[in-house]
Parts: sequence; C-alpha cells; structure tokens
Amino acid sequence: MAGHSRHQVLRAGRHTASYAERDELAQEIPVALEYNGISHAVLLATPVDLEDLAYGFSFTEGIIRSAADLHDLDIMETPKGMVIQATIASACLNALKLRRRSLAGRTGCGLCGLESLDEVRRALPALAARPACHDAGAIARAVEQLRASQALHLLTGATHAAGWADSAGDILHVREDVGRHNALDKLIGHMLRRSLDATSGITVISSRASFEMVQKAASAGMSALVAVSAPTTYAVAMADELNVLLAGFARDNQFTVYSHPEYLGNKGGQP
Amino acid sequence: MAGHSRHQVLRAGRHTASYAERDELAQEIPVALEYNGISHAVLLATPVDLEDLAYGFSFTEGIIRSAADLHDLDIMETPKGMVIQATIASACLNALKLRRRSLAGRTGCGLCGLESLDEVRRALPALAARPACHDAGAIARAVEQLRASQALHLLTGATHAAGWADSAGDILHVREDVGRHNALDKLIGHMLRRSLDATSGITVISSRASFEMVQKAASAGMSALVAVSAPTTYAVAMADELNVLLAGFARDNQFTVYSHPEYLGNKGGQP
Repeated sequence: MAGHSRHQVLRAGRHTASYAERDELAQEIPVALEYNGISHAVLLATPVDLEDLAYGFSFTEGIIRSAADLHDLDIMETPKGMVIQATIASACLNALKLRRRSLAGRTGCGLCGLESLDEVRRALPALAARPACHDAGAIARAVEQLRASQALHLLTGATHAAGWADSAGDILHVREDVGRHNALDKLIGHMLRRSLDATSGITVISSRASFEMVQKAASAGMSALVAVSAPTTYAVAMADELNVLLAGFARDNQFTVYSHPEYLGNKGGQP
Repeated sequence: MAGHSRHQVLRAGRHTASYAERDELAQEIPVALEYNGISHAVLLATPVDLEDLAYGFSFTEGIIRSAADLHDLDIMETPKGMVIQATIASACLNALKLRRRSLAGRTGCGLCGLESLDEVRRALPALAARPACHDAGAIARAVEQLRASQALHLLTGATHAAGWADSAGDILHVREDVGRHNALDKLIGHMLRRSLDATSGITVISSRASFEMVQKAASAGMSALVAVSAPTTYAVAMADELNVLLAGFARDNQFTVYSHPEYLGNKGGQP
C-alpha cells in the first residue's frame, strides 16, 4: 500500500461555486499486532513502513529490549485491516504474559490499555545529562528540513512526521503516519533495526508534544525532542525528569525551550 | 483547575539572542474513570469540564444510553491525577461487566482497549438521510466563529476545540482539551446533559478527522462534521456509511466535502 488513495471530493465555500475534484487522502487502517500468536493491540495507522512500526512500538512499549528480541515479522492484509505477526524472544513473551495476566486480573481494558492511574507512567531511567550539546542553529535547520521531507503530508495534508537529524541539523531519517505516536514509533523502529544511536541527534516532530511522545523519545535515548507545535504541562514535567531537552513552537528559525535549556550550546545570536 | 499554568521558558533561535520568559501551557493530566467503584479507563485530558467529559465519554463509548443512566458523579484530585467516580444505572453496569469479562477472558489489554480487528468498529446505526439540509455559508460561518471561541487555545496554542453551531452557523457550544477526542466528548457530554438535539446543527472540530471522531459524532446524532484539517480514508468510509456529511480543510470561507455532498443545500455561489 502507498499510504494514500484518490477520492472524489466536492470543493465548496461561502462565496464560490462548488466543483467536483479528485484528491489524495491519507490512509488510516486498523493494524493488529500479535506476539507469538497472541493478539496484543490494534493501532490505527498509515500502512507504510509497518515493519518499522512493529519494531518501534514493541520497543517503546517495553515489550522487546533490542531489535534482536524480535525474531520474525509477518505482515498480512485481511478484509478488516492489516495483521502483524511478530515472533519475539521467549524471555520477552514471558514478561509480556505476566504483565497481561496482571492486567486481566484487574478485570479488563481501558483506553490506551491503561486502567488505573498507577499504569500511566512507565518507570524509565533518566538519560545522562548533556550540557551544551545541542546547537540552536542545528535545531532550526532540522525543523526546516523536516518540512521539506514530509512526502505524504505534501500529498495529503493529513499525516504527521517524525524526523531525526544529526548534530548539524541535517535530517537523515523521516517516517510519516496519520498518528503522531505511530510516526515516532516508526522512526524509532527504523533506527533500532539499523542499530543507529539516536542520543546525540535532534528528533523533530511535526505535531504537538504530549507526555507519551516524551516517554517514547526518552526510551529510545533521544536527548532532544523538538515539536513544531505546543507541548503540554505533563510533557514538560516528564522531559524535565528524564533529561530531555524539549522544545516547541519551532518555526521560522525560532523555537521555545521548555526543559533543560542548559543543553543548548549556542544560545542563539552567534551562528 | 484552570486548564493552563504558567511556566518559565527560554525563547531561542538561529539568528536571535535567547531570552527567558513566562508562558502559559495547557494542562494535560491523567484522568481515571471509575464506574460504580470499578476502574475502567484512564484518559489524558485537560482538567476543565470534566463532568461533560464523563457524560460524553460514557455515552460515545456506549456505556450509558442517556444522561439519565448516569446517576452521580464525584470528581477527586489525587497526587497522580484526577479520579472521576461515576455511578451508573445497574442495567448499564451489567452490560459493561459483560463486555469487560469478555475482554479479560481474551487475556488482557491493548492500545485503546482494543485487542483484535473485530473490536475496532462499533455497530452503530446510520443516521437518517438529510438531503440539502446544511448550508455552505453556515458551515463557513461556524468555522470562523469557532476560531474566535477557543479561549484556551488562544492562551496556550496547545488545545483542540469542538464546537456546535445551529443551522445558521452560529456557534452555541464549545469545549476544549489537549486531546481532540476529549474535546468532542466534552461537547457531546455538555449537550447530552442539557438534552440538546445535535442533529440539525453543524459540528466543527479544530483538528483532523479520524474514523473515531466520525464514530463519536454519529453516535451523538451529529449529521455534519466539519474539520479544520484533513480527514483520513477510514473517516470518509465511516461517514459515508453512517450518513454524516464530512468536510475538511475548512478555512477562509472554503472547505472540501468528502462524504454526502447531497446534504449541502446551498452548493455555494448564492449566499
């Protein structure tokens, strides 16, 4: 699948005559994830780079500890959506079963798989502190380059992107999805599969930053998360705690730093 | 809680000197929902209009059938987040328990509480067909008015809004949240509590339209859903099926209709 499809639409307006046209829409499809034959979760995702999504989601959810834990992936199309059948290391499966048993014991399911307040925050170790390691010019450059790299967004206007730039701000990896969490998981999965270290670079997301985005970034060792739009209070608290530089409203060569401004080497002014 | 709080931030950039400032951020807080003492779900939400959220979420998730099914609401603040304790009619609780038992039987939890592809789509009846009942000028007017009514967004830039306009396009009800699904649930809950019929009006959302937004709107009888940003393929398919006029990219007096263009009475041109 291409991630987009062509549809007949009607352009209309208050002061203009309407006309029919064909338009490209972003695909959103239910994607079921199974581990060693057991159903685990359904994501609504854009059906491109699903291998990356499987690796990234499994990793940021703490199901696998490394790419080596995911032994095999089969992706199938069904009338109701896609099914990803993952085969994971038996140690991971045992941990997953234990976690799932304890959830089932508490009678059932909630939104996002969470049922009580205790389950919201994962126990993640903070990253190592990295004073003065990110450059303001590089951050602005990465944001600018991400915009130009969103192929699916340019076509459909409906997808989010997550990109990873090196310390100079050159975007080297980009993934897109209708869901911003999926876009970041795809990026993380892509880098994990290639054993690329994300720590020293800059991660840019085309969306807002919620606490889950910070949690995902930190779990992948990303020390700088730059959002094109706004962060929430909980995202800032989490970034503070996990030693992630969190920036938002990044556009037109400017941005706002919400946590760990001491990670910014060049505090602007001197390029 | 006000839904926003003040934080110290650093404004930085590529070519500009950085400076510290104070900024308003949108609050995102874990909100746990309990029904008759049993934990059900955790939402990440902005802690305003939580009563509306409880009514709306319970209704669009099919847990209650009307406002009368929700007998009592207690909202408590805890160190980990908010807890909403809802008391619902015993008939609803039995149905909920049955559904939860069947979920638990399948060993556990998935993202969004869904574990297999069969659970993604709710069996919703289609709305009655309503040819030529929505006016293009009214839709444009509603979109314009929503922008001006997003108090929390004007302050923080981080929240989505859902608004309901009458058939003339005048926005009468608005709710905001960091989550677009929550914003729509709050709007639906607000209208449900006041026994307001949503059918003939225009619902405007400041976000994109995913299939879940269409599902929620249809469950509340909303026959026109207008998104400021793009819809996905699945949202369009769902709107087609459920007899919802779905429009997107609504801005500057123009919009694109993706499903049921025949519901548009004034096809533009003649105000």
